[in-house]
Amino acid sequence: MTITITAFEKSPDRGQGLARDTRVRWALEEAGQPYEVRLVSFRAMKEPAHLAIHPFGQIPTYEEGDLALFETGAIVLHIAEHHAGLLPDDANARARAISWMFAAVNTVEPPILDLVTAKILEGDKPWSMERLPLVQDRIRHRLRQLASRLGGADWLDGLFSAGDLMMAHVLLRLRPSGILDEFPGLAAYVARGEARPAYKRAFADQLAVNKPAHGGR
Amino acid sequence: MTITITAFEKSPDRGQGLARDTRVRWALEEAGQPYEVRLVSFRAMKEPAHLAIHPFGQIPTYEEGDLALFETGAIVLHIAEHHAGLLPDDANARARAISWMFAAVNTVEPPILDLVTAKILEGDKPWSMERLPLVQDRIRHRLRQLASRLGGADWLDGLFSAGDLMMAHVLLRLRPSGILDEFPGLAAYVARGEARPAYKRAFADQLAVNKPAHGGR
Repeated sequence: MTITITAFEKSPDRGQGLARDTRVRWALEEAGQPYEVRLVSFRAMKEPAHLAIHPFGQIPTYEEGDLALFETGAIVLHIAEHHAGLLPDDANARARAISWMFAAVNTVEPPILDLVTAKILEGDKPWSMERLPLVQDRIRHRLRQLASRLGGADWLDGLFSAGDLMMAHVLLRLRPSGILDEFPGLAAYVARGEARPAYKRAFADQLAVNKPAHGGR
Repeated sequence: MTITITAFEKSPDRGQGLARDTRVRWALEEAGQPYEVRLVSFRAMKEPAHLAIHPFGQIPTYEEGDLALFETGAIVLHIAEHHAGLLPDDANARARAISWMFAAVNTVEPPILDLVTAKILEGDKPWSMERLPLVQDRIRHRLRQLASRLGGADWLDGLFSAGDLMMAHVLLRLRPSGILDEFPGLAAYVARGEARPAYKRAFADQLAVNKPAHGGR
């Protein structure tokens, strides 16, 4: 059955790979599964046809035969459960890898997304400049804990897993802020993720959609 | 094997059931599994023994034989995968229920937690009053979408699932703000969750730990 995912017709990051479809593309590449992409405009994302698949009007979504899924974490987990390469065989190690998937989206990503809120949604508010350091410090607090756990290991718990895929991509979103580079161990962790052939293919494919303007980023 | 979870020695909500151990207690009650609770102080949560189990120094955690897990969503999913009553048998329905688990923690909970940040962590800041309506409106935006999807149904996708458990408890955290009651359909949804015998047992057990002062909330 053909797998079809959705992605931004025009990503707000202009092809830096920060949008969440990159996580699903990456997982599908790790799993060696071909897929098709349906691009959706910001307008179409809020219309009934898309809302029927994604109740919150976002991307990505995942369709395969009768199955329609939303939420990146759930989609990546679905792919990981049905194909080799993203979850360990050992039951305990598998459960721990899933802990890291949830940690990525529920514990590490929220303060990072708050930075987007602070800089973009509230960038024109009178408190914007004074509030920003508080938001950044909440991110640093989480990253210190994460860096401490990772230590000198390559991945969070043994071999590369869907937990690393999710965590590395959540951290990637921080790179434009400069905060990731304050934590060399985590920056190297993200770089290891980006060096994987599957990530490179996923990145190239999303870039091809977003073709940045000449010299632009 | 004995299941042991961790919970606050003294919950910040003084027994309103808003802390995340309530989700795990609820799941274990739905699954009919006995468990033990190890209470941890705020100080102990930041010490090496607890950090070895929970890298971000939070509760709840889950221990069973050689397995140690953190992240509420992962723990609830683990329970749901190993016992009947929390995930549908049909593979597609099961994947959709997991979508709702991720939606609860990654899409609906972050703006709700931002309200805690705004009111408590930044409650003494000069922008606090002016910023609050923006935070509240971001929550309302998500709740409108969720209410629209739920419509007149009892649960989000067919029978009650771990997705409803997670979503109802995420919404429960909103009740003290009054925002939940602006959405009668969602307030009724949460009330249906609270009416389940398993939830009532979970709530009573966390309340017994936190024994509120006479007449206090």
